[in-house]
Amino acid sequence: MCGIVGVVGNSETTDILLNGLEKLEYRGYDSAGIYVNNQKGQDFLIKEVGKISELEKAVTPDVQGLTGIGHTRWATHGPATIDNAHPHFSADHRFYLVHNGVITNYNELKEEYLKDVDFKSQTDTEVAVQLISHFANEGMNGEAAFRKALGLIEGSYAFAMVDKEEADKIFVAKSKSPLLIGLGDGFNVICSDAMAMLDRTHEFVEIHDGEVVILEKNKVSISKIDGTPVERGSYTVNIDASDISKGPYAHYMLKEVDEQPSVMRRISKNYIREDGSINVDPEMLKEINKADRLYIVAAGTSYHAGLVGKNIFETLADVPVDVELGSEFGYHMPKLSQHPFFIFLSQSGETADSRQVLVKINEMNLPSLTMTNVANSTLSRESNYTMELLAGPEIAVASTKSYTSQIAVEAVLAKALGELKGVQAAKDLDLKEQLAIAANGIQTIVDEKDYIKQLSADYLDGQDHAFYIGRGIDYALSLEAALKLKEISYIHAEGFAAGELKHGTIALIEKGTPVFAYINDGVGASHTRGNIQEVEARGAHVLVIANEKYAKPGDQIIIPEIDEMISPIVSVVPAQLFSYYASLARGNDVDKPRNLAKSVTVE
Amino acid sequence: MCGIVGVVGNSETTDILLNGLEKLEYRGYDSAGIYVNNQKGQDFLIKEVGKISELEKAVTPDVQGLTGIGHTRWATHGPATIDNAHPHFSADHRFYLVHNGVITNYNELKEEYLKDVDFKSQTDTEVAVQLISHFANEGMNGEAAFRKALGLIEGSYAFAMVDKEEADKIFVAKSKSPLLIGLGDGFNVICSDAMAMLDRTHEFVEIHDGEVVILEKNKVSISKIDGTPVERGSYTVNIDASDISKGPYAHYMLKEVDEQPSVMRRISKNYIREDGSINVDPEMLKEINKADRLYIVAAGTSYHAGLVGKNIFETLADVPVDVELGSEFGYHMPKLSQHPFFIFLSQSGETADSRQVLVKINEMNLPSLTMTNVANSTLSRESNYTMELLAGPEIAVASTKSYTSQIAVEAVLAKALGELKGVQAAKDLDLKEQLAIAANGIQTIVDEKDYIKQLSADYLDGQDHAFYIGRGIDYALSLEAALKLKEISYIHAEGFAAGELKHGTIALIEKGTPVFAYINDGVGASHTRGNIQEVEARGAHVLVIANEKYAKPGDQIIIPEIDEMISPIVSVVPAQLFSYYASLARGNDVDKPRNLAKSVTVE
Repeated sequence: MCGIVGVVGNSETTDILLNGLEKLEYRGYDSAGIYVNNQKGQDFLIKEVGKISELEKAVTPDVQGLTGIGHTRWATHGPATIDNAHPHFSADHRFYLVHNGVITNYNELKEEYLKDVDFKSQTDTEVAVQLISHFANEGMNGEAAFRKALGLIEGSYAFAMVDKEEADKIFVAKSKSPLLIGLGDGFNVICSDAMAMLDRTHEFVEIHDGEVVILEKNKVSISKIDGTPVERGSYTVNIDASDISKGPYAHYMLKEVDEQPSVMRRISKNYIREDGSINVDPEMLKEINKADRLYIVAAGTSYHAGLVGKNIFETLADVPVDVELGSEFGYHMPKLSQHPFFIFLSQSGETADSRQVLVKINEMNLPSLTMTNVANSTLSRESNYTMELLAGPEIAVASTKSYTSQIAVEAVLAKALGELKGVQAAKDLDLKEQLAIAANGIQTIVDEKDYIKQLSADYLDGQDHAFYIGRGIDYALSLEAALKLKEISYIHAEGFAAGELKHGTIALIEKGTPVFAYINDGVGASHTRGNIQEVEARGAHVLVIANEKYAKPGDQIIIPEIDEMISPIVSVVPAQLFSYYASLARGNDVDKPRNLAKSVTVE
Repeated sequence: MCGIVGVVGNSETTDILLNGLEKLEYRGYDSAGIYVNNQKGQDFLIKEVGKISELEKAVTPDVQGLTGIGHTRWATHGPATIDNAHPHFSADHRFYLVHNGVITNYNELKEEYLKDVDFKSQTDTEVAVQLISHFANEGMNGEAAFRKALGLIEGSYAFAMVDKEEADKIFVAKSKSPLLIGLGDGFNVICSDAMAMLDRTHEFVEIHDGEVVILEKNKVSISKIDGTPVERGSYTVNIDASDISKGPYAHYMLKEVDEQPSVMRRISKNYIREDGSINVDPEMLKEINKADRLYIVAAGTSYHAGLVGKNIFETLADVPVDVELGSEFGYHMPKLSQHPFFIFLSQSGETADSRQVLVKINEMNLPSLTMTNVANSTLSRESNYTMELLAGPEIAVASTKSYTSQIAVEAVLAKALGELKGVQAAKDLDLKEQLAIAANGIQTIVDEKDYIKQLSADYLDGQDHAFYIGRGIDYALSLEAALKLKEISYIHAEGFAAGELKHGTIALIEKGTPVFAYINDGVGASHTRGNIQEVEARGAHVLVIANEKYAKPGDQIIIPEIDEMISPIVSVVPAQLFSYYASLARGNDVDKPRNLAKSVTVE
């Protein structure tokens, strides 16, 4: 996580940095800071603990310049303090550095080169900037010292550095962590995510791992660490800056929940032709069709969308599926099948835990597809194929429309693959119709916000624990529903297989414990009703979310009839809203919950 | 859950029932009751809410007879009240019935046959006894009415019934729920588990699903529901009644934790020959060797032992493994491999969620093995092969030595299979030595109880939430460690993949939140250290349990060096003890935590 911005050659440097950091706040907001240099010998360093608004308050009108770098932090080493905030600087105040990533050998580097240096912070980043200064003090120029340090540093990084002796340049490098160059008219910028600079430019240039960039007002020089020059063209990002505003909503999250019907329609329109046939890359389908097993790799909410996808692919495309956590899979790869195919799910396309898996499977020459919301993201670039989620920018840290769009896009691919293989279930599914039903189903629920807000208060006010239970497709869904509640309300929620609860965890149920039970899965419905009776017998306060087909009198929320396989697209929505209202009731920052960052770019 | 006892022909009937129920209390203890008939027209019905000790207080000395049935309950329908406690009886007080299981069509039966009956309880069981009475009132004798009702009842059951008009008999039937006949000298008994009657007899007779038994003083008649007679011999249970006493320990759990070193030595002695070769059924090995994928099916703690086993089998036997929850797998069977082999893990061998899977895979003619602590249990009888855990009776509801013995027995099988296949890793592993190291390692930890008790107080006193984190083998272990804490301390603990925590759940970390981090996994060690820094930066109170190889100064618990694959055998022990002391400190009933039952014989 952490977000980086930088600009050179623009007199509005301070504004560009602060504006960009605000847009990147979803990547972390423990603390933030900027360094601004007026290229005439005057410079400013301002750092604050907390959100960007705190930093903005601390920036006085005299902070102006032509070169600058900025950073918003999600702490990995050391707590959120001003000393630990970026930019970090060398002991002689010549070098200023911002960093996103984790330097794994920082202790060793400190031990070997920096024994006499007095460190101001507990961060791995300060080791990097002191190391550069160390080599400069040995007689190298700034660029050479920067390259020398890069050759020694292990781990992940996106760096942007200003050398006061060449203040009209920014030195940039990246490995594993995301970073982009943006091309302006008479100025240039860098940023962790194009969104940060969309009000200044739509033209961007990729930086690849192991490259160094020297950014000047009218010049961008890309080279390898050893100095070999690299040529690369630019590309255009077609997102409107207004897509990333809240409009009339109090929170991005509520806006994004409400957008889900239109996202479903957009996916349908883009991926399904008038005649119901699926419109995806035929080359990709041919490649996936060779696979004897699909491996879905993801983290967090995307992992939960993968669990829903498993059932969809196995049913529609008749292919076995493993769903794996990126952080586990990369380091403990199970015995793979003969012909594996990998599907990466990532809203941002930058998830470091998934990316380290992709790097490994690329080394093994195994084929892969990324389903992502960000077309030019790292995972998208580095896998063989990409399918876009088409959800539009998602700003709230708690993911909503990305989850539902991932399920829809999985269904698109599974149907296409199943039809290619001649699977009857794929032929039988009218996905166009089902996505229309999903869109309408979501609309029905989001139109009932007052009722759902009241239920949220009735069940969650004053509660510190909650459970979501279900079987089959509802089990996968329960995991996501519980995560939503954890993320923004800080209620300790758990999703559980309804039948597994009694094997231990039921000990936590006491009088009044909220238990949300999902009944969209036909096969498991009657058994889940039995499990509801078990927890009710122990005092649980049970709320049932049931599909119309399986609903009984007294069930609190009825989900319109929809194909069970994709039913989580609709039935997750009450859970999204429960967590929204519970967070609001507790006075939490809905869009920027504590400790979290949206795009998790460290392992 | 629920436990049943019955006796006919013994003047100590009341004592036998109460004693038996005490032994079965691990199966549930929401409420309990007995019905005693002196065969001369006098009878007694006593029921109490709570543990058996409450019932014992309520039984006055005049409660004596020659026929009796008793029940200890784990509520599935309706809360724990006297009305809902068993035995249930018909409106005319002629039939008395105890039941273990769940009748799924009780609403329909009520609707069709019993519209005019005034029900005293909310249980499915009362429907059964009123239904029998209904048919008796239509003119059938007790036996015919019993058989007629059995023909209509769907779901799972073990029934024992007394008909006051034939009070020298007990009518017995079973389907899916466990029940055994015990043969006495001049009397006969029934019980859910042989342990309940070991002080009276060691001779038992199985009852199979769909059979009816009429038990008399000197006669046992087994038949099918339609009346066809069945012949069946008896078998001897070689467990000493003293094995199931607490000895000098305050709690069974602590005794069972302490027994783990000797269990490891017993497994080694029984399964590994002097020369290091593995001693298991060669026929079974040949059969497993045909498999292209192993499916481990289990629930609760056994499921967690299965997750550890996955890595062991994949490493030593080079065969891919899926680990599945019984309650999920039976109803949502994924696409199976071409040649699957099933391994069921169950301490009791009676877990209903696993058994319904076994029934299904037997119908599909797929081969299976049960690893269980109870040789003549249902899962053992109904699968093709059995490997005994040799852990000795486990009485505490929180499973400890079963978990460690399951891992050891998995390693035994994996090594045998790997050697048969010529896998180098299997040949290289000196399992005899490793199990000796495990035994000694556990001993080192259990010898440090004062230190661990102090740590438990330092980290868990006053806490309602806790996390265990780890990667790879430590992730699987973290799930079990967290479950232990939940089960008996009621602290809401969660086990997490260390790298996954930051994808949402880290929002729950606040100042002082206890986080227990496992570092036994070499590949993941440095990354887990990074994740520790992330939670510490957010205020977590971190305790590290590290293997000697990867330990750093300041780590709180050091695990002696042991092969990583089987390291959870040792590193789970501190977690077992943390939960024990946390439970004690909260004044909970360590051996019989609220809401739980040891042997989960309902779905």
